[in-house]
Amino acid sequence: MPDSSPPADFVPTARSRVRRMHERGRYDRETIYAILDSALLCHVGYVIDGLPYVTPTLFWREGEQLYWHGSSASRMLRRQSQGIPVCVTVSHADGLVLARSGFHHSLNYRAVMAFGEAAIVTDDAAKIAGLNAFVERLYPGRNRQIRPISAQELKATTLMSMVIDEVSAKIRTGGPADDEPDYALDCWAGVIPLQTRIAAALPDQRLKPSIPMLDGLAHLVEGGVLPDILRRLAERAAE
Amino acid sequence: MPDSSPPADFVPTARSRVRRMHERGRYDRETIYAILDSALLCHVGYVIDGLPYVTPTLFWREGEQLYWHGSSASRMLRRQSQGIPVCVTVSHADGLVLARSGFHHSLNYRAVMAFGEAAIVTDDAAKIAGLNAFVERLYPGRNRQIRPISAQELKATTLMSMVIDEVSAKIRTGGPADDEPDYALDCWAGVIPLQTRIAAALPDQRLKPSIPMLDGLAHLVEGGVLPDILRRLAERAAE
Repeated sequence: MPDSSPPADFVPTARSRVRRMHERGRYDRETIYAILDSALLCHVGYVIDGLPYVTPTLFWREGEQLYWHGSSASRMLRRQSQGIPVCVTVSHADGLVLARSGFHHSLNYRAVMAFGEAAIVTDDAAKIAGLNAFVERLYPGRNRQIRPISAQELKATTLMSMVIDEVSAKIRTGGPADDEPDYALDCWAGVIPLQTRIAAALPDQRLKPSIPMLDGLAHLVEGGVLPDILRRLAERAAE
Repeated sequence: MPDSSPPADFVPTARSRVRRMHERGRYDRETIYAILDSALLCHVGYVIDGLPYVTPTLFWREGEQLYWHGSSASRMLRRQSQGIPVCVTVSHADGLVLARSGFHHSLNYRAVMAFGEAAIVTDDAAKIAGLNAFVERLYPGRNRQIRPISAQELKATTLMSMVIDEVSAKIRTGGPADDEPDYALDCWAGVIPLQTRIAAALPDQRLKPSIPMLDGLAHLVEGGVLPDILRRLAERAAE
């Protein structure tokens, strides 16, 4: 039986190849998907009249597709109804790197830049399935509790999609890399890790008293590390 | 004596005016500066051959100027040495908003989009002052401990700057805004706040044993909320 799974590595192009600090570049699917799946927000770049715009928006991945909806679409859509060139960038700031010279101070990070043509999902059934899948992914079981989307809401919602194809990741990990003589200096050096965590939930003022705290949302309890939670949810959704 | 301070509000333009959900738009200096000063990373958008690029990079604000250095510059600089149109976007994901319909699920966020022409800081003294100020801002007192920048390092570093002028903020806060009949549904609703926090520091493997843990860096102790720390550091630097 032929193997129908996509190749493990993306092919770097003139646009996607990491140039500066190229040793930090990564093109394998597992690394790129892990960075995407651990994030809540992407930054979508697009061009109007030759000028750049960057809009932050919620996004998600399903297989080889990225999806996002909301404000990023509207400004673009006034100009063009499909096939909009975009750069979707996702980044994680993982840690402050303190070195023994200003020059070697750095940031540990993981970032993905994906280039492509964003298109509107026009088929209503696909749109509903996509939006429901996003709710279900973040909040498993929730579509059984909430009201389904109305025809009017569906019309007011834009769902964008893009094939992940021309893409690269760039990663810095580890401690400072100082110049040899500088190790003799008397200053603290190392990494101060950063983590996005869940804080204590704030129930809606009109929440029915009969509803238990975070009912069905135990995965979002205070103290959880958001990127880890998001990645586990993505793995669960892909099963 | 004439008041030389800049006007309190920015003037919205065709580019910077918030259109979708315009009630979330803000143009006052205090709000915009607070969002910028609480962030470590920005996403710089630029255009090459008509196509968009978005690069995440460390940045900081000094008065009415934004500064950033590193990778975002290099790809642009191959094409153009100054006056590059950019969109600098800064965003904070503050909380997941869980509503009683998929449509009203949302994200609490604060974002700034600043449009302008990015220029290279070419004057060496200004470049050194800018880079040192960034180190000093994040790590007060550190320039006295570390090795100063060398001539070679200065040459290898690009510092970009942009005047903050054409700019807007967009903010969502508060709980879900459900349709009236949906409040009767039996599902948990509210906000799950997100916070970027400092985790336990990892000393460099070659750290001299005589250096106390986080020496001079008590503001970066485990558990601190990064945006709050950054904002206090910015206020301190501005004094």
